[in-house]
Amino acid sequence: MSESPSSNGRLYGVGLGPGDPDLVTIKAAKIIAAVPVVAYFAKKGARGKARAILDRWLADTCLQLPLLYPLTTEAHFCDPAYVEELRGFYEKAEAAIAAHLLAGRDVALVCEGDPLFYGSFMHLYVRLRDRFTVEIVPGVTGMSGCWSAAKTPMAWGDDVLTVLPGTLDHAALIRHLGAADAVVIIKIGANLSKIRAAIAEAGRLATAIYVEHGTSETETIVPLAVKTDDHAPYFSSILIPGQGRRP
Amino acid sequence: MSESPSSNGRLYGVGLGPGDPDLVTIKAAKIIAAVPVVAYFAKKGARGKARAILDRWLADTCLQLPLLYPLTTEAHFCDPAYVEELRGFYEKAEAAIAAHLLAGRDVALVCEGDPLFYGSFMHLYVRLRDRFTVEIVPGVTGMSGCWSAAKTPMAWGDDVLTVLPGTLDHAALIRHLGAADAVVIIKIGANLSKIRAAIAEAGRLATAIYVEHGTSETETIVPLAVKTDDHAPYFSSILIPGQGRRP
Repeated sequence: MSESPSSNGRLYGVGLGPGDPDLVTIKAAKIIAAVPVVAYFAKKGARGKARAILDRWLADTCLQLPLLYPLTTEAHFCDPAYVEELRGFYEKAEAAIAAHLLAGRDVALVCEGDPLFYGSFMHLYVRLRDRFTVEIVPGVTGMSGCWSAAKTPMAWGDDVLTVLPGTLDHAALIRHLGAADAVVIIKIGANLSKIRAAIAEAGRLATAIYVEHGTSETETIVPLAVKTDDHAPYFSSILIPGQGRRP
Repeated sequence: MSESPSSNGRLYGVGLGPGDPDLVTIKAAKIIAAVPVVAYFAKKGARGKARAILDRWLADTCLQLPLLYPLTTEAHFCDPAYVEELRGFYEKAEAAIAAHLLAGRDVALVCEGDPLFYGSFMHLYVRLRDRFTVEIVPGVTGMSGCWSAAKTPMAWGDDVLTVLPGTLDHAALIRHLGAADAVVIIKIGANLSKIRAAIAEAGRLATAIYVEHGTSETETIVPLAVKTDDHAPYFSSILIPGQGRRP
C-alpha cells in the first residue's frame, strides 16, 4: 500500500461486533471516541444497527456520515440494474469519505461484525486503499456472537468449519453440508425453506440451531427442527456444531 | 442448562481476542476487572499468551489460577497416553474451578481468541455447565486478527469460507482447498511443508498469505510463495482470500 501524505486523514475500518455495544473492542471504542468523522452504512429510512451500537461511544462533537444503501439486501445480485445502482452508491460513498480524508480529517468507517468478513467496508476499502493510509480494527463476528449466545461449542480439535451463504443453490448447500464437520449458514431471509430442506437431506437437522438477533435484546435461539415457519431476517443464522475429538 | 443455586459463583468463559490487549472487548475487560478469580491456560514453564494480554486488565486483588497443560500442542492425539494425560489435566482443572464456584466466587476462565472456536475452554465448559451458571463472552478470533493485520478482505458476497486444521492429511486438504472460495488454515507448526504442497497442488499458492503472531509486536506477514523455510509456530496461519462478486 502506498502511504498517503501526512496532511491527509487516515481511514479506520472498525468492526463493531455482533450487536451488544459492550462487545465492541477497547481499540474500536477509543478510535470512535477520537476521530472527527464516523461513517456508517444504513438502509434508507432506517437508523442502522451500526448506528445503534455507536450511540454508546460517539463523542458529541463527532460528525456523522450515514451511507444510505439504495436497495434492500434481498435484491438480486444478478440483476444488472441493481449492480449498477450499487456501484453508484459505493462510488458516491467513496467520494464523500475521500473529501474528509483529503481535508485532513480522520474517518472511522464502522460496520457490524468484522470489517473483512462479508462486510460492505471491503467495497470502499479496495477503492480507497491506494490513495490513503488505512488501519483495520477486527471485530467479534456475528457468528461468534450467535454461538456464544447459544452456548454452543462450534469447532473442536481437527474439525473443519465452513461458512455457507444461504443464497447458494440446493445442490451446493448439500455438497458443503456433507463435507464439513461444523457449519454456519448466514444470509437466511427468504432462503430459509431451501436451507432447511438441504440440511434435512444432508441428515443434519437434529443438531441445527436457528439464531435470530444474536446478542441483542430481541435474541431468539431455537432448534431449527422446531422452527416450522419460514419467516427469518436476512441476518439471522443457522449453526451446526462440530463433534470433534475431546479427551 | 440447569441454573445453579444463587450461593454458587458464576463461571464466565471470556475470549481475549488475537493478541493485542486493546482487542479485548469492553465486556471482557469489565468482567476480568470485577471477578475475584481469573483462570487461564498456559504451558508448564511459560507465562502463557492469555496471561500477557490479561496484565492490562487484572485487578491487583484478583486471585490468578493458572491451568498448566501437561504436554505441548504438537503431541499426537492418537497416542492413548497423551489422551489420558490430557483428560487428567482437564479433570484437575475442573475440580480447581469448581472449588471456587462452590465457595461462591465468580471465576473468569479466559482464553485467546473466541472461547467456542477451537478453544480449550470448551473442554471445561462441557464438564461444568450442568452444575453451574455459565456466561460466555465471545472474542475476536485469531483469524480475524490475522486477516485484519494483513489488510486482506477474506469473504465477499456468496463466497464459501472454510477453516481447515493443518493437521488434516494431504488428500483432505486438497479436497477442501478445491471446494471453498476462501480458506483459513490454522494449526501450522510441523505441518507447514505438507500444507504448502497441498496448496500448490490445488493451484492456490499465488494468493496464499502466511501470518505469524498476528496483531502482536513480533507479527510477520508474507506471501506463502516467498516463505521457503519450514519453520512455523503452531499458532501461525495461512489465508487464501475469496474473490467473490463486487460491484
